[in-house]
Amino acid sequence: MIDKLVIIGVGLIGGSLSLALKQAGLVEQVVGCGRNLDNLKRGVELGILDAYEAEISRAIKAADMVVVAVPLGAMTSVFEQIAPALEAQTVVTDVGSAKGSVVAAARPVFADKIHQFVPGHPIAGTERSGVEAGFATLYQNRKVIVTPTEETDAHNTGKVISMWESCGATVESMSIDHHDKVLAATSHLPHMLAYALVHHLSHLNEHEEIFRYAAGGFRDFTRIASSDPVMWRDVCLANGPALLELISQYQDEMSRVAAAIESRDSEQLLSLFGRAKSERDLLIGNC
Amino acid sequence: MIDKLVIIGVGLIGGSLSLALKQAGLVEQVVGCGRNLDNLKRGVELGILDAYEAEISRAIKAADMVVVAVPLGAMTSVFEQIAPALEAQTVVTDVGSAKGSVVAAARPVFADKIHQFVPGHPIAGTERSGVEAGFATLYQNRKVIVTPTEETDAHNTGKVISMWESCGATVESMSIDHHDKVLAATSHLPHMLAYALVHHLSHLNEHEEIFRYAAGGFRDFTRIASSDPVMWRDVCLANGPALLELISQYQDEMSRVAAAIESRDSEQLLSLFGRAKSERDLLIGNC
Repeated sequence: MIDKLVIIGVGLIGGSLSLALKQAGLVEQVVGCGRNLDNLKRGVELGILDAYEAEISRAIKAADMVVVAVPLGAMTSVFEQIAPALEAQTVVTDVGSAKGSVVAAARPVFADKIHQFVPGHPIAGTERSGVEAGFATLYQNRKVIVTPTEETDAHNTGKVISMWESCGATVESMSIDHHDKVLAATSHLPHMLAYALVHHLSHLNEHEEIFRYAAGGFRDFTRIASSDPVMWRDVCLANGPALLELISQYQDEMSRVAAAIESRDSEQLLSLFGRAKSERDLLIGNC
Repeated sequence: MIDKLVIIGVGLIGGSLSLALKQAGLVEQVVGCGRNLDNLKRGVELGILDAYEAEISRAIKAADMVVVAVPLGAMTSVFEQIAPALEAQTVVTDVGSAKGSVVAAARPVFADKIHQFVPGHPIAGTERSGVEAGFATLYQNRKVIVTPTEETDAHNTGKVISMWESCGATVESMSIDHHDKVLAATSHLPHMLAYALVHHLSHLNEHEEIFRYAAGGFRDFTRIASSDPVMWRDVCLANGPALLELISQYQDEMSRVAAAIESRDSEQLLSLFGRAKSERDLLIGNC
């Protein structure tokens, strides 16, 4: 049971966390904190928050758990506001989708309180954002990754793991570098590809017509291009090296596809598509 | 009302067409034709076909409408079997996802019967294939494009349009070149991008782990990489030039994205992602 949970940045991720914990009866009080007071008021109206507070130092008083759910670019500033007011019993975690940059920001700011910080990342979300997009089942059967630093107190890591597990998630622990590499492949690169496709097509003369003839496959493929641009700009800045390496490898792969089409290499095309299909069907399922 | 409909190549597309027309009560008899007799027998068991016939010349006797739903690479051979046996009252249409190559194949084979051929393309489908994947509502609120040649009899085009409209589709007519360009953008390029991504990731050391951490966004983004490899090999061979031009432009776009990440150009990234999101939300909807 968490007596007082503070969510800094109440959107899809934080809002859904609150709803899931409330539904499980595992939180006493949820306090929202953020710059947009209308958003926080809306959170109270929706039953996602019990109270809100504009100032971080006041919000986190007597808190058991503080969840930082702001875009990556805002982490440092939020950490700077948390650190001086952070009480000894409070655990701080975040939900950032790149972990190297978050830990680099947290370490000097939290200094000797760094053992209270548990870097985390729920692998969940939709292309929607904002508190109104939150729902209690977002984390069910989803994965949450924690990447504790050397200094993180294992007891605190345990509390963060319990919190996510009670939302229905499976929690796994991995190193920061490994997280950032895996996520660059499964999430950051696909987002870049989808954004680039929609951006490119939007500049073609017949772009309105092109989107008019888009069928279900195109809708699914480009869904992630409706994601929050600020969040994804921050991911690019936070996980640049891992992402750039993958983009470069992907460009080589696309050049091989183009070469096979150009030379009408039927065998090569069939083998490439066949391997991709069987890999996906095997590891994700044909759905 | 179609008295006798013949479907050559009974899979998702042909099977769903039959089910839709039967449900609308607009077809008397549906005869399936293809090389795989087990598949055709399964079609009869499923109530998709009333009868089947292994030989095309026998199948199309006394037919009102022949729908050729084989992969693009098999079109010429099927047309060659149809043409000598084609009776004057029969309309032939196809469902190929590239139209230039189909018309190029059809014209010399059908010769003075070319006015009976109406090139068509239902913009519908799922990543599943095979007769068992068929369902009656596949075409509801979907688009079908017809690209009649100069020689096509407008009366025959009208019959094909009616057929698709009675399945719940909206039918539009456009030139062959225009079709192939629009489809390269909305369908052929996205399939290449998804296949290339899954193929590339499948070669990384941590590929099993990568797929294990794949969330909903990745599942949606890569869904089309579970499509039929033979069909997509044929699309590449059939619509190569339009597709290659788009791949090349896309590679340039990805290089610009990479350059913006490398130079940490926050404004440029935000503008690119923002434009993509607003274009998609506007023209497709945030869903």
